[in-house]
Amino acid sequence: VDLTAARERAAALDAADPVAHLRARFRLRDGLVYLDGNSLGAMPAHLPARMAEVVEQEWGRDLIGSWNTHDWWTAPERVGDLVGRLVGAEPGQVVVADSTSVDLFKALVAAARLRPGRTVVVTEPGSFPADLYVIDSVAELLGLTVRRVPPAEVPAALDDDVAVVSYSHVDYRTGELADLAGITAATHSAGALALWDLSHSAGVVRVDLDAHDVDLAVGCGYKYLNGGPGAPAYVYVARRHHDAMRQPLTGWTGHARPFAMEGRYEKAPGIAGMRTGTPPMLSMLALESALHCFDGVEVDAVRAKSQSLTSLFVELVDGHLSAYGLEVVSPRDADRRGSQVSLRHPQAYAVVQALIARDVVGDYREPDVVRLGFAPLYLSHADVVTAVERLDAVLTAGEHHDPAHAVRHAVT
Amino acid sequence: VDLTAARERAAALDAADPVAHLRARFRLRDGLVYLDGNSLGAMPAHLPARMAEVVEQEWGRDLIGSWNTHDWWTAPERVGDLVGRLVGAEPGQVVVADSTSVDLFKALVAAARLRPGRTVVVTEPGSFPADLYVIDSVAELLGLTVRRVPPAEVPAALDDDVAVVSYSHVDYRTGELADLAGITAATHSAGALALWDLSHSAGVVRVDLDAHDVDLAVGCGYKYLNGGPGAPAYVYVARRHHDAMRQPLTGWTGHARPFAMEGRYEKAPGIAGMRTGTPPMLSMLALESALHCFDGVEVDAVRAKSQSLTSLFVELVDGHLSAYGLEVVSPRDADRRGSQVSLRHPQAYAVVQALIARDVVGDYREPDVVRLGFAPLYLSHADVVTAVERLDAVLTAGEHHDPAHAVRHAVT
Repeated sequence: VDLTAARERAAALDAADPVAHLRARFRLRDGLVYLDGNSLGAMPAHLPARMAEVVEQEWGRDLIGSWNTHDWWTAPERVGDLVGRLVGAEPGQVVVADSTSVDLFKALVAAARLRPGRTVVVTEPGSFPADLYVIDSVAELLGLTVRRVPPAEVPAALDDDVAVVSYSHVDYRTGELADLAGITAATHSAGALALWDLSHSAGVVRVDLDAHDVDLAVGCGYKYLNGGPGAPAYVYVARRHHDAMRQPLTGWTGHARPFAMEGRYEKAPGIAGMRTGTPPMLSMLALESALHCFDGVEVDAVRAKSQSLTSLFVELVDGHLSAYGLEVVSPRDADRRGSQVSLRHPQAYAVVQALIARDVVGDYREPDVVRLGFAPLYLSHADVVTAVERLDAVLTAGEHHDPAHAVRHAVT
Repeated sequence: VDLTAARERAAALDAADPVAHLRARFRLRDGLVYLDGNSLGAMPAHLPARMAEVVEQEWGRDLIGSWNTHDWWTAPERVGDLVGRLVGAEPGQVVVADSTSVDLFKALVAAARLRPGRTVVVTEPGSFPADLYVIDSVAELLGLTVRRVPPAEVPAALDDDVAVVSYSHVDYRTGELADLAGITAATHSAGALALWDLSHSAGVVRVDLDAHDVDLAVGCGYKYLNGGPGAPAYVYVARRHHDAMRQPLTGWTGHARPFAMEGRYEKAPGIAGMRTGTPPMLSMLALESALHCFDGVEVDAVRAKSQSLTSLFVELVDGHLSAYGLEVVSPRDADRRGSQVSLRHPQAYAVVQALIARDVVGDYREPDVVRLGFAPLYLSHADVVTAVERLDAVLTAGEHHDPAHAVRHAVT
């Protein structure tokens, strides 16, 4: 395949890219095209120095006093505000804590308790399975019923029994963007609360939580936020719910007077009431440091770059690779797409492995999806062309038929 | 006060100390007497190099592939087994995950579900408040009643209604060791399950979970296990309960087939069923690395050293400092004491601050307790004498009357 023209276009797009300088904020080796930032974000270049400081000076030298002197204690809210800026939340409404699953559990119980007497949770049949598992568990604990409804059918599924409507902003397989504004408005018309999982949208898509009157949200710190493997997650609760919210994981750091060692729980004011136990500070401070990669950057600029990258990729796949049985699963309309492009292929797993052997790292999702994330902070249009070239080389040479590429690993 | 004789005795004890070499495994600056290892353990000397490797090579260079190539995926069970050795659990029964509060929530719900029809949880009125808050929350969710009973009165409080008996192995204020074997046996006689919080005993006291037929346990990674600030916690479930246990935080990493992306939760076999979300790997791997400080060390040797340190301290306080209104709150019988000595003093907060100014770091607990932890891996008998000398100097000079020492910080 001749991609000369594409490479020239890419060079021009990169030359005009207003956020191209952000690439220097990350360390990625030459030659690698990393299309898995939607699974584990790349490492910010300044992270090793910051972590050495945290480990050697804050922990090693200053020890327990660092809870005060290095402001460890307030990190969950401070880092939460950094996330808040990226998802359209005014300060004081986001706290970083626990994992996405744990935060979803807290948020969902809190939401259901804000709508006593209502007995139904509406969610997506194809939502991220982790979310479905937690929703089912909460339903069992609280005696609720779960209705699994595709996003487009939500309005018709709403009635006076619905307490919470819980969806993912971006479909983890197809990359399709849900209608956050529309579903939230419909949810409110039915008197229910809207809870969104932003794991695949925060940092690459405008979210505007406050503007759309979203009630609660959760999301992951290690994808497009680049917080490191298993970085803590975050939870948003709109300020209007802070006084009344009651979450079930009543840990000591969410107490109104955590050091008074009182025998009864009393929720801390504000979003701190969503905290639970002592946060894993090494991971927490890595996330904080990573979020400074967004300093001076507006989400709109990142989103424009993301759409430009994914649109170029879709166009090149359509134009050059359709003969190989690849099908673009993601919406072709860039406005309905997150920052990923998913391709269907009968040997999707082996295609992903063969691409990795050619230093293009994406991931595989059951049963037949090649999932490629385009992190706009550190990818260029030239990277997109390289990915297409290598994908063409894999398919032309039949490298995905190599039995070595069919061996499954635990995690891809 | 003349501590010449005490210093000579300490030198002799240190010279004969079979675990004195472990001090070299930690980095603590000269002059500091760190008596807060029960709140945040000291930093192992090899930690900075290991964390640099994790950050730069595992995350930065190898990226998503590290879940396989660096065995990130299996770390929760692997690190769990390292903890297991210290608490008397055969491999496969401990998993590292989340915070102590979250693990207690999971363990308590799982335990209650193993005793359907029983409606009471028995716990301690003076238990660590974080535990009380979680127990109360679980009781509300499951419709249970909580009986708060001092440890000595547990046998009399047991009846057919009791589902779970949940206590701390060491009282966080007084350092008193609970009768784990006796309370567990009494609990079983009533047909209930025993759940222990080992936060202040693991790594310094024999626990023997398997030998005493304990059902479930949780504990903290950042105290005597030295895992770093907010290190992940751990949960133990005896193998006999693995098949039947059902915990409520049904995250994807605890699924039987986490990458099959199935729409319904099916618990993973074994202790992995207690996992929830993606673990914070930087903090997880720091804990793993720190646990290697126990390599080649038996808990009995650590316990003997711990008792020798605390006994010397109690003896010197009794002998030299009782005139200052200090009262030893901890049991004088070393076999009934964890690895801490708590002193009561009317100006306890200011005494702790004045001690910190003299480079003896302990902590304060409401309302009048100076709490001093003696981590046997990195403290010497000479350190004990130094601590007594400086405490004497503070009290003699009245340094705790300095108004600067009365200012409360958020965390001490």
